[in-house]
Formats: sequence, structure tokens, C-alpha cells
Amino acid sequence: MPVGVSDQEGRLRPAPESFLSEELISEISHRGVDKGRRNLLRGSFAAALAGASGLAFGDDPNIVNVPEWSRSLGKPVATNPYGKPSPFEANTVRRQSPGLTQTDQASVAFTPLQNLFGCITPSGLHFERHHQGWVDIDPRRHRLMINGLVKEPLVFTMADLLRMPSVSRMHFLECGANTALEWGNSAVPTVQYTHGMLSGSEWTGVPLSLLLERAGYDRDASYLLAEGADGSGMTRTINLAGALEDAIVAYGQNGEMLRPEQGYPLRLVVPGVQGVSWVKWLRRLEVGNKPYATKDEASHYVDLMPNGQLRQYTAIQEAKSVITAPSGGQKLLSQGYYCITGLAWSGRGSVRKVEVSVDGGRNWQGARLEGQVSSKMLTRFNFDWVWRGEPALLQSRVSDDTGYIQPQRAALVAERGTRSIYHNNAIQTWRVSPSGEVDNVQVG
Amino acid sequence: MPVGVSDQEGRLRPAPESFLSEELISEISHRGVDKGRRNLLRGSFAAALAGASGLAFGDDPNIVNVPEWSRSLGKPVATNPYGKPSPFEANTVRRQSPGLTQTDQASVAFTPLQNLFGCITPSGLHFERHHQGWVDIDPRRHRLMINGLVKEPLVFTMADLLRMPSVSRMHFLECGANTALEWGNSAVPTVQYTHGMLSGSEWTGVPLSLLLERAGYDRDASYLLAEGADGSGMTRTINLAGALEDAIVAYGQNGEMLRPEQGYPLRLVVPGVQGVSWVKWLRRLEVGNKPYATKDEASHYVDLMPNGQLRQYTAIQEAKSVITAPSGGQKLLSQGYYCITGLAWSGRGSVRKVEVSVDGGRNWQGARLEGQVSSKMLTRFNFDWVWRGEPALLQSRVSDDTGYIQPQRAALVAERGTRSIYHNNAIQTWRVSPSGEVDNVQVG
Repeated sequence: MPVGVSDQEGRLRPAPESFLSEELISEISHRGVDKGRRNLLRGSFAAALAGASGLAFGDDPNIVNVPEWSRSLGKPVATNPYGKPSPFEANTVRRQSPGLTQTDQASVAFTPLQNLFGCITPSGLHFERHHQGWVDIDPRRHRLMINGLVKEPLVFTMADLLRMPSVSRMHFLECGANTALEWGNSAVPTVQYTHGMLSGSEWTGVPLSLLLERAGYDRDASYLLAEGADGSGMTRTINLAGALEDAIVAYGQNGEMLRPEQGYPLRLVVPGVQGVSWVKWLRRLEVGNKPYATKDEASHYVDLMPNGQLRQYTAIQEAKSVITAPSGGQKLLSQGYYCITGLAWSGRGSVRKVEVSVDGGRNWQGARLEGQVSSKMLTRFNFDWVWRGEPALLQSRVSDDTGYIQPQRAALVAERGTRSIYHNNAIQTWRVSPSGEVDNVQVG
Repeated sequence: MPVGVSDQEGRLRPAPESFLSEELISEISHRGVDKGRRNLLRGSFAAALAGASGLAFGDDPNIVNVPEWSRSLGKPVATNPYGKPSPFEANTVRRQSPGLTQTDQASVAFTPLQNLFGCITPSGLHFERHHQGWVDIDPRRHRLMINGLVKEPLVFTMADLLRMPSVSRMHFLECGANTALEWGNSAVPTVQYTHGMLSGSEWTGVPLSLLLERAGYDRDASYLLAEGADGSGMTRTINLAGALEDAIVAYGQNGEMLRPEQGYPLRLVVPGVQGVSWVKWLRRLEVGNKPYATKDEASHYVDLMPNGQLRQYTAIQEAKSVITAPSGGQKLLSQGYYCITGLAWSGRGSVRKVEVSVDGGRNWQGARLEGQVSSKMLTRFNFDWVWRGEPALLQSRVSDDTGYIQPQRAALVAERGTRSIYHNNAIQTWRVSPSGEVDNVQVG
């Protein structure tokens, strides 16, 4: 469910009947819905009495408002040995952007950020970005090889890896192409499509450093090639020094084994680095002493700069934030209080603060950061706002613990031009019109 | 997948071929599986060449070992708009304990802790404990009433609540009856059944204190009655002072709306307190000045003490820990290194340290705590162990930041007897026999 607004498919949600302001709360007991509620309560007490006196529920006209779930036997435990969301949440799903790609295997399905809470992304809603589709790998047949500049090449089964020392850490994962269409004037309608190649998860696996030490990696080596087992044979150069610090050869995500779309049974986790380098279905790590210039780092995932040159190996995701609600495609159904909520993150460390502007960046105020702030992980922020029907331009900006401040779009474009495709971390603007409609605009 | 051991259903997993010890690693390149792997690699390179020269894959005898997922087009994105686990993980499910309860609606389905990682429990595997089954509530028809000792009774729709200020926090949830059968000599076989009424989640919702302030609660009030909308009409007395500190009227769990089995669309989150008080399908909160002595706190969820008296309102879950792997029903398939892993938590605050013993509590050594330790949340611990075939008794014990240390079973029984049913936080022992079998024993 979205936050008191219409959903992005345009279907209306029930109108909010009360908010935080005193004058509105006083209205509550005079609303029709509340009258219904009083009937419901009277009915509920009547039902209890009826039960005690042996009357059948259907005999009492007062209890027509008692919902069926309060007067019936529910479903048994383990009806679903692996549980599912409520049928009323069928609108909260991953979505493909029609026409964005030529095939459905080399494509994207976006996370519905507008409907989510906190900083953990449910694995079932984790975005997908594949280069030749996703596969169901049999873990008994999967192997990880470590070769290249090592004393002894090694091959690991999944059983080997599952027996090794493990770590569990929370990190965000963002595709380098997230927010790509915002380089132009495309005005992608919703936050699902502007920022939905983003997730936060708890990852579990073997520290990469431990595996490389076991293989006896060359201390003069500076790079690593990571290779996937899917049909695309995805290969990426990884900076070795960074990876030795905190990369994980991961089999677990959010408490369970990786999902197939996320690389089951093995994925390289490179905290702070763009998603394409978190190679899925990981089958090989080669230690080397120069970048490998693979297809997916020489012709893709490079930034076309204003001077016509290509910026390459721009792996780290700079600090970025976005308001997830209210956001594009939603509608404020009435005036009053709203809790502006969103996500902030930095590939270089921790979120230090998040500020929100409701006037397109002229004035900024601090937002609340929820829970414990973790390095290279999503941070949820919240901000109190009372809307009185005025036009508004909603923005958020993050500062990380390196002192870096997320740039306005104009500042980023001045340096990078508009043809980068990748690595757009500009401040996002959502315009609220007096009718309550929210849409995506580019200002500044 | 379990951690390099047989699964609890007794089916064998592939034997590990390498571990951390030097002598075993040197064996790897001489094993059959590795020979297969070398074939696989040669085949892979051949396939790439074949592709470049236009040869069909089937024409090259070298590539028979290339798995089908490396030489075919995968599945499209958004094949599953809401994703599912790998079909190879079908064994990782919630399970009912046969014969534990007389009906399947007033029953339990346990979380498969032996297969899980980190401190987040996947919502699909969250344990279930219902008193009259679970229900699919229509959120548009659900209401929350606040009444009793308040200036103004209030009724909230879900849309109201979703528009209010929200918080997101990680907390464990443990049923007061978790580990109940360990009071006797039952020797429940697996950790799924001994400790599987336990979870860790990120919860999102409105601070309870905010709702009560809005209703103008009586500052002399000391208790709260929480009532559910399911057929059982679950009611529990909540300590008001504690709840004002950190209780949440929650609609979100692990990033999305609550699951139906967890109270969709609304659940009371009472950090550190036993699960029955986290009333699901929450429909009413009544402010009062004395405990309500409801059925589920007067005749259930009370501790029968050795003197025959019943200890009541024992809400807070004391510090507790358990090794989740290796654990009962698993089998160590060979000697060598194992990463002993488990969970620790305290209803009174944060985990300060976890110690592990492999000799039934004679010697203790500190375990590694993973990630950031959060108050009233699960903490994952790991401990390095090399098994040389000797019989072993594996135990863990937690200390929390109040200085409390988890007791051995004998110490707990000396104080509480063996008929409590509820609130068993004793140290758990897993016995490893020379054959590698792991089973549940009671020592000390």
C-alpha cells in the first residue's frame, strides 16, 4: 500500500479520514466511516453476548458489520509452508518498463520502491537486471574456481563454501544504470522506474580475502576478474584492494539462500560498487595485474563525457537519495499532514545526514534517519510535512561521511553532460500540483 | 542448504571436498570432481570458440560438461513479478510438529533455523502461532480503535495510519512457549522444533506513544489491553510504561506490508516482550489502570513454579542463544573445519558477548558477532571449530548488556522446576557422536 495516496496504477485508495492536526482529529467521530465503526463495535459486543447465550450470529441484526474474519475459523498453520503476501497487495510487484529493451532476457524489472518501507528489500521484489536471462542452477553441479596469479588454483563446491567461515553484513545494491533516463528529459513517471534498480539486503558468505589467501594470491596483483555461469558469461574487472577489504562470496541473502534471479547459488558482493560487478551465478575469480577491458566494461557501463571521451571503470556508486513517497504517479487525496519518506545511501561509507526541501531546493531541513545507519547500506529517512494545497517541489539530498553532498541536476550535468547513461546521482524532484497530482520534473 | 552437513530430513548433501586445513586443500586438484571441472572449463572455452566460428554447440565433444545454464538463453525478467526461492531449496520450509496440537488452527509452524543465515528471517519462513487460524483481512475494512482512559476515543483507518509519522526498527520476535518441550526430557530432534518460534525482522509503523498522545491518554494509566480481529479475539495486557518507550503499531515487515500470517494489515510490536503480546490483526487498544487477566494471560502463558503457584505476566524474554548449525538431526560428513553458527538475543537490551563450548560447558571461548548489534534484535554469531572425530557437546551462552548470563539447564530447573511450559531460556546442548551424528541432549 502506498502512503495515503493513490497507487501508481491510478486506482484510488480509500481516502484518509484523520491526520495529525488537531482540527482534523476532532472531525473523526462525525464521519460516516466512524459511524460504521461504532456499529461494528456494538455488533462485536453483541456477538460476544450472542455467543455466550448460544444465539447463532445470523440471528442478531446488530452484527452485520462484524467482518467475516472476526466470526469464523481461520486457515491452518503451514497452509503455505513458504508464505506469500496478502492478496490485497497484488499491486506491489516488480515491473518491466515497456519498450525499454529489445528483448526480455537482456532487460530490467524494477523494484516498487513507492510501496516499500525501511531499508530491507524483500527478496521477492528485488530488482532484476540480466544480460541473458536468469537460470535455475543445480547447486550440486556448481563450482567456483580461483585462478590466475595464485600459487595454487582452487576449485570449490558449494558444500566447501558453506563449511567455511562466514560473515553477514547489510549492503545496498544499485545498478550503475539506475536513474539513467533522467539524464534526458524523459520524465519517467514513477520512482519504480527512476530509482527501482536499488535494493538493501543482508548478505551472508565467505570473505573474498579468505579465499584469495587460501589460493596464495600474488601480493603484487591489483585486479580480479569475476565471471558468471549464465549464458552471457558476464565478466567484470574488480579492484583488488577494495575487494580485499569487504567483498563477500555470498550464498545467503536476507536470511535464506540467494534467489535464482540474484545469482543462486553464488554471487560476488562488492559493497559500494555498481551492481554489474556483483557477478551473479559466480563461477570463476581470476587474479591479475591489469584491467581486463571486457565487453561489459569497455563498451557498456562507461560514461560518455561532454568532450566525447568515455569515462571507464567508474565503479563506486556516489552518495544519492530519493523520496519514495509521495512520488511520481501518486496523488495526495486531501490536504494535511504527510510523512515524506525516502532512502539514502553512499558507496563510499555511511549516510551522515539527509535534508528535505519542499520548494525545489531553496530551503532545506533535516530529516529523521531510521534505525542504525550502516556503511554502504540504505538508510530510511522520514520528514514531517503539512500540505495546504500549495504547489510544491519535493527534493532530498544526502551528505555522506566523506563530506560529499549529493548534487543538484544542473551541477551534475555541467560536469558530465547528458549522455552518460550511467552513474546519475542527481537530486530528484517530484512536483506536487494544487490538485494533489505528483509528477516527475527536472529543475535546477 | 545446511552448512556442509546432511539435512534434517536425512537426505545426504554432496560431501565437502575441501576445507580450510592446508593438507586438505592440497588434495583438491587430485579429486575427481576437479577433473570434471577442468573438463568444464576447457569445454567452456571451446564453446566460446565454437560460437565465434559459427559451429553449433552440439558438434563439439569437448563441451559435454558445460552445464545447460551456461549455454542457453535464460528466463525473461519479471517471469515472477513476485519472486520465489530456488526449486532446489524446497526443503527449507515452515513445519508443523506432528501431534503437538489437537487442531491445525490453534497450532504452530516452526521456522527452519538450521537452514538460515544472518539475523533477518525471510517473511515467507516466519514461524506461525495462531489461536484460531489466520485470516486475509481486507485493509479497506479494517479499523483500529483507541479507547478506555483517554480524553477522546479514536478510530483509525489503515489510510490514516499509513499517513502518520513512521519509524522502522529491527527487533526479534519469540513466542513465550519457544523451547517449551525442553522443560521435560522430550529431546525434540531439531532446532527447528526446539527454537523455531523465533524470528528477526525490520518493523515499520506508527510509534504507539504518538497514537496514545493523540487520544489524550490518562497519565495515571499503567496498562493497555491489545485486541485482535481474528476469530480468537486474542487479548493481552501490555505494560504501558514499557510500551510507550518503543512499541510500534506496525503495518510493515521486512520492507513490505505484513504477511497475513503475521497480522496483516496491523500488528502490535512490543520489543523484547513475548510474541503473544504482539497482537496480530490489531483492532483495539484500551488504556486502563489494572491488568485485565484475560484468558490468554490467566490460564495460558503462565509459568507453573515448583511450589505449585503460577507466575503471571512474565512478559519479557530473557537473554538466550542457540547454535543453529551443526544442530540436532544433522550429520558431520567428514572431519575438519566447521563454522559453528547461531543466534543470540535479549529482551532487555543488546547482546554483549556470546561464548561457545564444545565440551558441554567446561571450557568457553568467545564467538564472533556479525554485523551491527541492535537492541532487542537477533545477533548472528560464528565460531571456528576443527572436528577430529571426537565426541563433542556443543553449547552457546549469551551475556547481555544488563550483565545477565544465560543459565545452564540445571540452574534454571533448580529455580523454576520442569513444568513451566513457557520462558525456557536455558543453554541448549547438541551432542556430536564419533560417527558425526548430531542430536539433542540435556546436560548439566
